Amino acid sequence: MKKLACVDFDGSEFEDSYWNELDSFTEKRVLVATAAEVPQDTDGLLVKLGATYNKDMMAKLPNLKYIGMLGTGFGGIDSGFAKSKGITVTNIADYATEGVTEFTFGILLEYLRDLGKARSQAKEGNYSDDFSGSEIKGKKFGVIGLGDIGVRTARLALAFGAEVSYWSRNRKKDAEDAGIKYRDLDDLINESDIVTLNLALTTETEGIITAARVGKFKSNAIFINPSPMELIDFSALTIRLKKDDMIFMLDHSDEMSEVQLGQLRPLKNAIVYPAIAYLTHEATELKKRIFIDNVKNYVAGTPTNNVTSTSLTAAKAEHAP
Amino acid sequence: MKKLACVDFDGSEFEDSYWNELDSFTEKRVLVATAAEVPQDTDGLLVKLGATYNKDMMAKLPNLKYIGMLGTGFGGIDSGFAKSKGITVTNIADYATEGVTEFTFGILLEYLRDLGKARSQAKEGNYSDDFSGSEIKGKKFGVIGLGDIGVRTARLALAFGAEVSYWSRNRKKDAEDAGIKYRDLDDLINESDIVTLNLALTTETEGIITAARVGKFKSNAIFINPSPMELIDFSALTIRLKKDDMIFMLDHSDEMSEVQLGQLRPLKNAIVYPAIAYLTHEATELKKRIFIDNVKNYVAGTPTNNVTSTSLTAAKAEHAP
Repeated sequence: MKKLACVDFDGSEFEDSYWNELDSFTEKRVLVATAAEVPQDTDGLLVKLGATYNKDMMAKLPNLKYIGMLGTGFGGIDSGFAKSKGITVTNIADYATEGVTEFTFGILLEYLRDLGKARSQAKEGNYSDDFSGSEIKGKKFGVIGLGDIGVRTARLALAFGAEVSYWSRNRKKDAEDAGIKYRDLDDLINESDIVTLNLALTTETEGIITAARVGKFKSNAIFINPSPMELIDFSALTIRLKKDDMIFMLDHSDEMSEVQLGQLRPLKNAIVYPAIAYLTHEATELKKRIFIDNVKNYVAGTPTNNVTSTSLTAAKAEHAP
Repeated sequence: MKKLACVDFDGSEFEDSYWNELDSFTEKRVLVATAAEVPQDTDGLLVKLGATYNKDMMAKLPNLKYIGMLGTGFGGIDSGFAKSKGITVTNIADYATEGVTEFTFGILLEYLRDLGKARSQAKEGNYSDDFSGSEIKGKKFGVIGLGDIGVRTARLALAFGAEVSYWSRNRKKDAEDAGIKYRDLDDLINESDIVTLNLALTTETEGIITAARVGKFKSNAIFINPSPMELIDFSALTIRLKKDDMIFMLDHSDEMSEVQLGQLRPLKNAIVYPAIAYLTHEATELKKRIFIDNVKNYVAGTPTNNVTSTSLTAAKAEHAP
């Protein structure tokens, strides 16, 4: 590359060794505060999650050939237009698969065994064992969406000894061979003791957990959502939760409104965590590594995580939340 | 049986259906408050955890043929003398394998992701994502003692993607075939990021985590003990913990003294839970079922969980904590 512009980066994002590595792929690198400041002769752009690049903005940069997104979602970038202009757009998929999966089991076990209460009680010198937990083993465990995180969640649930089912747009033979049973979405919700929602938000999946489906959860079901809230009919969910006959756990997504958070807060069966499911040291390191490697592989002529490649776009829509 | 005496039972221990089932195995059943009240012509005794039956006490009951322990530990019963007199002693092993294993991963994930803090912070409306967790995947995970709970813990750690090693008195080919590596005890402690202690307390294992071994834990190691504290040199452990360079997590055993608990309480790197590792609905039900089945199988001439059978005694000493 001749000129790589990093928009809204201040240098603190990476250690020097990563910046040095990036510099080896380009003749010049500039850090700019906003898209408006990107030099006209830029051929590479590195951008952050939430960045917007429409047709007009891209048209103003005639040399532009590469946009690297420091994150998974790239909805703000007109990737169709980018493709038509031969601009490669890359993102970072799957860096947080383990982090999100381990978080899911962490919050599930925390709830099932009331660990927070047990720990704080003991810290105060009260060692009463008046607790009655239950086990993941033997539970009917339903996974909605069998992308990377869904598969990992389903397989770990199987290792815990749960009876695992899934629904996904396409059947997954590998998972079925491992003992993960395919179920119709309505049946899956209706039969499971524990349900995890692991879909990406697309026009097809938005609102997929309709009011009718919200009504199908078993009494005392545990519904875990580490994915965008837009997948669920929120109004129907709050009405159901007010009946206090099921548990809803979530890692709140940045897109959730204060109004939604405010509606969940008073409900004791809505267990909300900050947006930390993907936040692990390992995921953070892997994310940086993939981001740099995407640039390296693009420069080498073998782009990775190329969302403007048709086959990958389709695969990704089904994969990462 | 002709007369079954239940010592220190008040009837609330089981649902009626279980009592009815027990009654079908004996001509008469009596509930007595203490061992002194056991009728002289009793041929069966049902006792609770911690019950003491020495030679003299057994000698006073000439018809005694069966002692059923409602628990795993049977140290208070002179099983050697019982055996010499043809008295069958049964206990309840392994009913809590899943409960203890799931608890272990629950408290580990709670610590690694700071879930308690995250949850309570969000409940107060603070959704800050200033958290930096780490993952079980990729960690060196050492299991000391490969009985039922140890094996289950090691296999689940493997499913999480950890690099799992074990030490046990005897090599375990099945575990090694699954990818769980054997290590010398000192090396295991010295190399592992996470160590779980899953040994039964016997004269051989008491104090097995010596002061020297306490000194071998890696800096920042996480040491989880869901087994009796007598396995560890407690004084050396508290000295090491005061250096604040490792984490110790435990499900406090009923045998721990107030003095020990009081010494751990001020240490922020000693994370103590009440004795709840084995407390799940499923384990409680399974425990009752095994207890009743032990009587049933004894009466049928095919005793189960017979701790007076030599081969089983040896196996059990290595197994259940």
